Amino acid sequence: MNRPLILISNDDGFRAKGINCLIDMVREFGDVIVCAPNSARSGFSCAFSGLEYLTLKRQLTKVDGTPYPEGVQMWYTNGTPVDCIKLACDQLCERRPDLIIGGINHGDNSTVNNHYSGTVGIAKEGCLKGIPSLAFSLCDYDKDADFSPLTPWVKRIVRKMLDEGLPHGTFLNVNFPKCATFRGIRTCRMTMGEWVKEVYKCAHPRGFDYYWLVGHFENAEPQAEETDQWALNNDYIAVTPTTIDVTDYDLMRTFKL
Amino acid sequence: MNRPLILISNDDGFRAKGINCLIDMVREFGDVIVCAPNSARSGFSCAFSGLEYLTLKRQLTKVDGTPYPEGVQMWYTNGTPVDCIKLACDQLCERRPDLIIGGINHGDNSTVNNHYSGTVGIAKEGCLKGIPSLAFSLCDYDKDADFSPLTPWVKRIVRKMLDEGLPHGTFLNVNFPKCATFRGIRTCRMTMGEWVKEVYKCAHPRGFDYYWLVGHFENAEPQAEETDQWALNNDYIAVTPTTIDVTDYDLMRTFKL
Repeated sequence: MNRPLILISNDDGFRAKGINCLIDMVREFGDVIVCAPNSARSGFSCAFSGLEYLTLKRQLTKVDGTPYPEGVQMWYTNGTPVDCIKLACDQLCERRPDLIIGGINHGDNSTVNNHYSGTVGIAKEGCLKGIPSLAFSLCDYDKDADFSPLTPWVKRIVRKMLDEGLPHGTFLNVNFPKCATFRGIRTCRMTMGEWVKEVYKCAHPRGFDYYWLVGHFENAEPQAEETDQWALNNDYIAVTPTTIDVTDYDLMRTFKL
Repeated sequence: MNRPLILISNDDGFRAKGINCLIDMVREFGDVIVCAPNSARSGFSCAFSGLEYLTLKRQLTKVDGTPYPEGVQMWYTNGTPVDCIKLACDQLCERRPDLIIGGINHGDNSTVNNHYSGTVGIAKEGCLKGIPSLAFSLCDYDKDADFSPLTPWVKRIVRKMLDEGLPHGTFLNVNFPKCATFRGIRTCRMTMGEWVKEVYKCAHPRGFDYYWLVGHFENAEPQAEETDQWALNNDYIAVTPTTIDVTDYDLMRTFKL
């Protein structure tokens, strides 16, 4: 019998620390194929490249020059996180993956940021393909963030996914707070809120204006203990089960034109 | 009292026929600000530009050289559809928009394609900002598609949105079948299914392979009369109410690690 096949991607690029830590955490559970963007693709959501051609290259060595171990293949593309999953499933995986993982992201993907996240886009794409999928993110944007406290939790979650799978049409968005010791794990709902002061206007010396998207998230319900941001703010790991079916059934039944 | 302010964007670019037809359909209802990508951004989902600077330019005349009418401002950016909404709300709209519309898209955005669509991304972004929002798409990819049969329906839907709004956290994904006369309108749920044969591999004469994302959607439930693709296949307009909160509440209650 084949070992489980785990397909991994991210939106920080194949050289990022987070994805390389994830490989080391999960490779004991099966064969690992990684297909990740050649550089950062943060905020890419479920974008795919309908208009550009894609390339696919193999990387044999880690950043430190040592080879990737037996059972791990590292590939990178010029595409989006979702492109990576589509390409890998079609071109790289000789059998159907048993699990698809996005991450570990350098930064928070809880709340409505779920919709913008390329890391979450990976899990959504896996789920759309009917494969158990999840996204891992650490609430620390530092490129040298310490992922080691996550190790036992990542292993526990991955083992459970491989053993039990997930209901069809649902994936997990898992966010870890930035702390050395977690108080535990909480299953949450998505926190509602809004991004504010999103545009930073600059004057170019040649006389035109240009803009950077920045801003910060304003939590509309900071006291709601069942939300993912509450969990993270209180040093819990937040697991937000997320659906592919985004129909509003209440309005579907009542909407009249 | 101010006239209603309608903010429009698309993912086909500001010169596309669909967005220009939409402007003509809705400008009787209020002031119109358009902020659209400078060229096609299909499949951009909710992607935003966190790493690139953005520009914003005004276009005074239509493709045929005539000026945009009084009460209509046309702007374009180098960004994504979601960028357009963020920029327009911050930089172009002197008051809060009363309605945000994506489209009219050249092509189908029903089914799980909801997740990939830049047109739907616009409505999602509007909804995240707490503004009544919707996406219009016509199931015809032709750049010269005939949008005229949509006119009375678009007006009816826009008038209803301006009069009544929508429940907080929900927007409408509206798809029109390609036909001269519609049998009516149906409120639907998202059709489930999967994209297959998505990767087309090519050999470059210089000896490397490259890939195009193509494929087709396989409907997993073609007989389900409550789905949006069934409605479209039967010449009905499909209105799919879509939620921002994508939590799977069933799994949230039962998931244990």
